Amino acid sequence: MFREALQNVVNGVDGGLAGMVMDFEGIPLDSYSREETDFDIESVGAEASVIVKAIQRATDMLDAGDTREVSIKSDRVTTLIRVLNDSYFVALTLRPEGNLGKARYLLRVLAPKLVGELG
Amino acid sequence: MFREALQNVVNGVDGGLAGMVMDFEGIPLDSYSREETDFDIESVGAEASVIVKAIQRATDMLDAGDTREVSIKSDRVTTLIRVLNDSYFVALTLRPEGNLGKARYLLRVLAPKLVGELG
Repeated sequence: MFREALQNVVNGVDGGLAGMVMDFEGIPLDSYSREETDFDIESVGAEASVIVKAIQRATDMLDAGDTREVSIKSDRVTTLIRVLNDSYFVALTLRPEGNLGKARYLLRVLAPKLVGELG
Repeated sequence: MFREALQNVVNGVDGGLAGMVMDFEGIPLDSYSREETDFDIESVGAEASVIVKAIQRATDMLDAGDTREVSIKSDRVTTLIRVLNDSYFVALTLRPEGNLGKARYLLRVLAPKLVGELG
């Protein structure tokens, strides 16, 4: 469904490892990961959904408006999350030295297309 | 304690609103906010501590290494969090159109100094 679009983003970013579209319950709609990746993308996504829900609750309480984008850098991986609508988000994982700026740009461009397909 | 350092960062970033050093229990060590800010920096910090703890748990489970930096963009504000050590983090809030790149740079430079003072 979204695999080709995810593949284009993952392969279009230096250090890109995997990408997925997922709902906030942690159920993946579609995902793509590079073959050499030893990262479990479904675990990443399930945890991302927990994080995004925590952040949504926090920003609701703060009246800070809807969360649009979250990035999390750890020693071994960077995860970029873009909220699509009330139900879905897209997540991209890349190596810490990967091109976060380009990842952010590609997800921002991709998001409205995904939203359109999600109806 | 850290007020002057926080003030330099907040005032050094276009769109900077407030900054704070806080522990993971949500207790602020020190904070600074621009006078024109209507944002409740202590609420932001308390929520940030919840988010960072959720992320730490998630990255622990994923064996992704320690979380270094988190950024959260919402409609009304961007929050940048940098983890200092096992107990403390520094957070900076800025307007959505603020200079996130410069904020990230200034926090990265400031972090080792704060760590040094925290002992």
